[in-house]
Amino acid sequence: MSFQNPVFIPGPTNMPEGLRKAVDMPTLDHRSSLFADILHPALAGVKKVLKSETAEVFIFPSTGTGGWETALTNTLSAGDKVLAARNGMFSHRWIDMCTRHGLDMTVVDAPWGAGIPLDRYEDILRKDVNHEIKVVLATHNETATGVRSDIAGVRRAMDAAGHPALLYVDGVSSIGSMDFQMDAWGVDIAVTGSQKGFMLPAGLAIVAFSPKAVARTETAGLARTFFDVRDMAAGYANNAYPYTPAVGLLNGLKTSTEMLLEEGLEAVFARHTRIANGVRAAVDAWGLALCAASPDLYSDTVSAIVTPQGFNATDIVTHAADVYDVAFGVGLGDVAGKVFRIGHLGSMTDVMALAGIATAEMCMVDLGLDIQLGAGVAAAQESYRASTADARRAAA
Amino acid sequence: MSFQNPVFIPGPTNMPEGLRKAVDMPTLDHRSSLFADILHPALAGVKKVLKSETAEVFIFPSTGTGGWETALTNTLSAGDKVLAARNGMFSHRWIDMCTRHGLDMTVVDAPWGAGIPLDRYEDILRKDVNHEIKVVLATHNETATGVRSDIAGVRRAMDAAGHPALLYVDGVSSIGSMDFQMDAWGVDIAVTGSQKGFMLPAGLAIVAFSPKAVARTETAGLARTFFDVRDMAAGYANNAYPYTPAVGLLNGLKTSTEMLLEEGLEAVFARHTRIANGVRAAVDAWGLALCAASPDLYSDTVSAIVTPQGFNATDIVTHAADVYDVAFGVGLGDVAGKVFRIGHLGSMTDVMALAGIATAEMCMVDLGLDIQLGAGVAAAQESYRASTADARRAAA
Amino acid sequence: MSFQNPVFIPGPTNMPEGLRKAVDMPTLDHRSSLFADILHPALAGVKKVLKSETAEVFIFPSTGTGGWETALTNTLSAGDKVLAARNGMFSHRWIDMCTRHGLDMTVVDAPWGAGIPLDRYEDILRKDVNHEIKVVLATHNETATGVRSDIAGVRRAMDAAGHPALLYVDGVSSIGSMDFQMDAWGVDIAVTGSQKGFMLPAGLAIVAFSPKAVARTETAGLARTFFDVRDMAAGYANNAYPYTPAVGLLNGLKTSTEMLLEEGLEAVFARHTRIANGVRAAVDAWGLALCAASPDLYSDTVSAIVTPQGFNATDIVTHAADVYDVAFGVGLGDVAGKVFRIGHLGSMTDVMALAGIATAEMCMVDLGLDIQLGAGVAAAQESYRASTADARRAAA
Amino acid sequence: MSFQNPVFIPGPTNMPEGLRKAVDMPTLDHRSSLFADILHPALAGVKKVLKSETAEVFIFPSTGTGGWETALTNTLSAGDKVLAARNGMFSHRWIDMCTRHGLDMTVVDAPWGAGIPLDRYEDILRKDVNHEIKVVLATHNETATGVRSDIAGVRRAMDAAGHPALLYVDGVSSIGSMDFQMDAWGVDIAVTGSQKGFMLPAGLAIVAFSPKAVARTETAGLARTFFDVRDMAAGYANNAYPYTPAVGLLNGLKTSTEMLLEEGLEAVFARHTRIANGVRAAVDAWGLALCAASPDLYSDTVSAIVTPQGFNATDIVTHAADVYDVAFGVGLGDVAGKVFRIGHLGSMTDVMALAGIATAEMCMVDLGLDIQLGAGVAAAQESYRASTADARRAAA
Repeated sequence: MSFQNPVFIPGPTNMPEGLRKAVDMPTLDHRSSLFADILHPALAGVKKVLKSETAEVFIFPSTGTGGWETALTNTLSAGDKVLAARNGMFSHRWIDMCTRHGLDMTVVDAPWGAGIPLDRYEDILRKDVNHEIKVVLATHNETATGVRSDIAGVRRAMDAAGHPALLYVDGVSSIGSMDFQMDAWGVDIAVTGSQKGFMLPAGLAIVAFSPKAVARTETAGLARTFFDVRDMAAGYANNAYPYTPAVGLLNGLKTSTEMLLEEGLEAVFARHTRIANGVRAAVDAWGLALCAASPDLYSDTVSAIVTPQGFNATDIVTHAADVYDVAFGVGLGDVAGKVFRIGHLGSMTDVMALAGIATAEMCMVDLGLDIQLGAGVAAAQESYRASTADARRAAA
Repeated sequence: MSFQNPVFIPGPTNMPEGLRKAVDMPTLDHRSSLFADILHPALAGVKKVLKSETAEVFIFPSTGTGGWETALTNTLSAGDKVLAARNGMFSHRWIDMCTRHGLDMTVVDAPWGAGIPLDRYEDILRKDVNHEIKVVLATHNETATGVRSDIAGVRRAMDAAGHPALLYVDGVSSIGSMDFQMDAWGVDIAVTGSQKGFMLPAGLAIVAFSPKAVARTETAGLARTFFDVRDMAAGYANNAYPYTPAVGLLNGLKTSTEMLLEEGLEAVFARHTRIANGVRAAVDAWGLALCAASPDLYSDTVSAIVTPQGFNATDIVTHAADVYDVAFGVGLGDVAGKVFRIGHLGSMTDVMALAGIATAEMCMVDLGLDIQLGAGVAAAQESYRASTADARRAAA
Repeated sequence: MSFQNPVFIPGPTNMPEGLRKAVDMPTLDHRSSLFADILHPALAGVKKVLKSETAEVFIFPSTGTGGWETALTNTLSAGDKVLAARNGMFSHRWIDMCTRHGLDMTVVDAPWGAGIPLDRYEDILRKDVNHEIKVVLATHNETATGVRSDIAGVRRAMDAAGHPALLYVDGVSSIGSMDFQMDAWGVDIAVTGSQKGFMLPAGLAIVAFSPKAVARTETAGLARTFFDVRDMAAGYANNAYPYTPAVGLLNGLKTSTEMLLEEGLEAVFARHTRIANGVRAAVDAWGLALCAASPDLYSDTVSAIVTPQGFNATDIVTHAADVYDVAFGVGLGDVAGKVFRIGHLGSMTDVMALAGIATAEMCMVDLGLDIQLGAGVAAAQESYRASTADARRAAA
Repeated sequence: MSFQNPVFIPGPTNMPEGLRKAVDMPTLDHRSSLFADILHPALAGVKKVLKSETAEVFIFPSTGTGGWETALTNTLSAGDKVLAARNGMFSHRWIDMCTRHGLDMTVVDAPWGAGIPLDRYEDILRKDVNHEIKVVLATHNETATGVRSDIAGVRRAMDAAGHPALLYVDGVSSIGSMDFQMDAWGVDIAVTGSQKGFMLPAGLAIVAFSPKAVARTETAGLARTFFDVRDMAAGYANNAYPYTPAVGLLNGLKTSTEMLLEEGLEAVFARHTRIANGVRAAVDAWGLALCAASPDLYSDTVSAIVTPQGFNATDIVTHAADVYDVAFGVGLGDVAGKVFRIGHLGSMTDVMALAGIATAEMCMVDLGLDIQLGAGVAAAQESYRASTADARRAAA
């Protein structure tokens, strides 16, 4: 474990020095008044990052998966109907969780590389004239394919269908890195974790409920205790927690939201777009394509790169780890072996991204792909040179 | 947040320098082979601390409460009968969780300050001739009252009744600090967290299943995904995790078990007894009594001290925090206002304990209790002087 | 190295969490503009702590001993006459350094436990009618004996004698903990280090020159390069350093001065007096005496405690380290074996001090001294209870 | 201070995670036995890195400049004759220090970019028939020009001249990164610091004396106290220090030598050659030349790159810092504005080096130099691909 090179996985991200220090706290009595000074700013900060005025934020010592479970178990009952699209590994897993909790799923399968099919959502919702569908699920950014779906579009489809279902969004690999407008998009539950846009170690599930979602907690029949948001809310009202909180991570989250808001959310998002554009320029120079089917779907946090047929993309990831001590992401599920992934979210600079691109290039050449060394780097350099100058002008 | 004084809460404990550094890791790719070198030693280390040859250990990014839920949801179905004793806040909460998950509870109420009533357990089990009770719950160390129950005795009672129920033990505030013999005592599920005997930040639920408990996971009807031990087991077999693991905490747990095993478990337990004896000597010198009803029940990790009638024990905790920047534990539930608690587990020395005792003394005098300054300290000093010499002879 | 207990040596002190984090920096280019943002606030902060408007501050990667050498070699020539008092190990060492650099010493020997004899200084200076004495040395706080000398009094004696010599003060174990008025006292060079009142690791010599002292650098004949303040001054003027600076320690010093100034210097000094009073109350309760001959000489940063004749005081220090893992200071030089020392400067609380007092008590009883366990603690508790309440009223 | 990108300055280097943690220690009593367990392994480790069986190592809380002063003041007297070559800023500064300490210098000026002219050394020494020259100085690696001189050759020249002068070598930017054979080369004093090959923060002067050099300390007339190696030696013999040591840095040095020796010195040197070869390949691809006049002089720790006439090389460094948050080194002294420097020593990987090369490329293009983006990167990639495979075979 040399820790010399940055990681290029789609989370956990590289951690800013200041966040590592915020997390690494001596023991603090979580029943003392000091805890409130960590908890409440963290909650408030998350709310601002979500661009919400009305949401209630709940933070669990858990992960995004626990966040999904929080969303389901606090608002639904066994047999409830749920609509979801499956276009990658993470949407697949959320659907699997629903099934395991006894929900009645309507699943729209889309190609891995496509976004959520808005027209099919609308169609299904229109046909649900009795409004039996209680909840619509949407994965904002499919980490497995590098596809960003159009959440505002999902909301428009729901509204066009005049359907009252709630909208739950997995924003694990988008929130804090790409624009997320909880209120404007009518999101009822947003789920994320600490280890992506917030640039912290894994260990927190971060979940925000709209007032409508909060109302559902009174009637939901699914069992929950650890993930019960009513206990959480009762605790927060007393500056407390229903069990032992992960104080250091909460302090990190408070500090992370301060960092993001100080930089400015739009600047944070623009930075992610900038870094991603450089990676995409490199992919193009390599003569390769992204898994994401079209530019409107390109994720700004992770790029899944399709390798030529007959080539095992996972070899790149293994080779990079073994030979160059660099971590990329493998393809998962349907795209296993077909893509490798470069994570470019969180604490990342042009310079770090160039290191990743140069390494990917070496790996591909080492493994016999017909790639010209330096070609992707040059394309990314060109992209960064121009956009950095623009960014500096914008900041000036 | 000055962090100058140690904390005297019953967990999270003071953290050893080496564990803070083990937890504070740069980002490591949890899908790389490096992760296995953290995960497997951590699992193996926990097993040794539990004195088990046969258990399967599962570690979740969660807390002890999540560990309870793991135990229940992986092995039980709605309507299953469960026997439990309530003798403090934490046994109460576990019972509450059972109820919320639809289990059919037989609750034995005992005074707060008493241990688990073995005779009543045996009596109930004998009468359950159809063996409808599936599981017996036992809280090894009631953190709220400083009472250690006799888990070997619970097993004897179950065996005496010839009852096949499984035995699930909450060892959150005992494991790693007080003797725990998973195999010898016939414990089927043991639950703990990272922030007590393991001296780490909160954030891990640590759960061990006996083969019998593992077998139950196939038939258990309660819903679970985040806490599903089958997914966990499948992940471990591939050096992986079903979702993003808390790598730093796992590395801390690996290091913690190394520290405990290097010191020697019996030495660790003896150390806790030694430190606790000093605190108890002080309580005696103050003319006060412990909440724990008799010496065989005295916990070696936390002492709940009963203050005179008419006095609000919580004032001591508030005063210590406000005036001396020292954290003690308040009384919870039935003993709120009646006791205050001194946690003396984990990373604690004679010298640190004397600081806590001296502070408690000042607080009690400040608040008008008839305590002689220095009296408790002197009793503890006498205790430590003698026992330290003994400990050094034992180590020589 | 368990690092569980605080240290009670007269520096390096216990370090505040925030200072450890300020020092532990990733590599920063010391030739970049970022360095100026560390260097200049550190210099300005030190100046404020010294209560000087006119001094130039120089910071070397070195220690207080290097600070002494900086003072001498930048302002004196071989054969120059220097007046100094020897009343402890550190004044002795500074005199020794002067001799080794070829200075012509007039040494006033005083008992170890006495302060600087002002009358003898005045007498010698009056008799030096040709003003051949170029510099008067004064050790503000003799760390070896716990004696604080009267620097304002030294200045009065010099003025009464109408003597133009410069006044150089060793404030290593006073500055940042006890009042030091560089300008008001007419101090020409003040010397300290990072590891005492500034609560940092050792590694910085901190030296301040009055304009008069700066003027002497042009004519001083002693050789110096590493410690040449002219190179340092030239560097600072360009936001640079004549060689590689200890950036982390400088960042720590910047942060340390911010902490001290935020608390308020008078509050910092009062805090040290408060903590010291408790220690002194304990010494009195033990029936022992301080090495310092009278209360006006008592140091607020370190107490040297005289043990009964025939007893080897160093045994207490060895025993405390071996048995209780606690560090006290041994006696040095003339008082070796006769005193042990409790350092109570820097990051120290009432509660930490009580731990040290309780430990010293146990050690003394273990070693057969006729001390009553708890007696010193009780006296200190009484002192802290009263003074803490006063301090809180003052802050309110 | 974002600390996201690595630095490419010729020291302080990027720090390995493990060394940062070794340095960041809580306070330890340096008069306790714990200190010996840090000090002696650090001394022994340095000796092994120097490949010496006979040297005495001394470590001061200072820098390499203090190491030079240690060498001079402990072994020479005013008026002593010293031979030195000036071929860069650091050799120049050491000569300047000699002059300021009253030594009688014979200076051989060589072009900046050349190595030490061995023939001229030999010629001068042959002509010094009375052996008045006491010491020969040699700068192993001129950090300002990226030139490695032939120290074995200097020794051969001295021997060929049959001259008994001692040989003092500045190995500040070579030791720990490039081969250094103190005994085999007949080096009498070797000087380095903590912040280069040892990859630590600045703050330690590390000096090794041959037995002959130690013997000179008895007769040396120059004044010294802080840097007196006799006091240091006397301290070490008692597991102590003549003043307060920089314990954390010493612990870091102990750990650093363990890391270097575990990797194997020859492997460490080969690694530096490998990384440097990649940088040199990039320089060649850019159509630029190194300041070092010929390949035998190329430094493996720093490359000084000559930019086209009329171009201010310092602009690259400023631009890299301002626009890309990357630190390179400026040209110093005679080559100011003519070269910029890439440091590639210490904690550095292929991947990190590629990031630096890519950044330099962007800067040069941004500033109008006729460089093709990606060209240098591609050349370095080619170099690294081949050599990494070789290194893996060697290690297998």
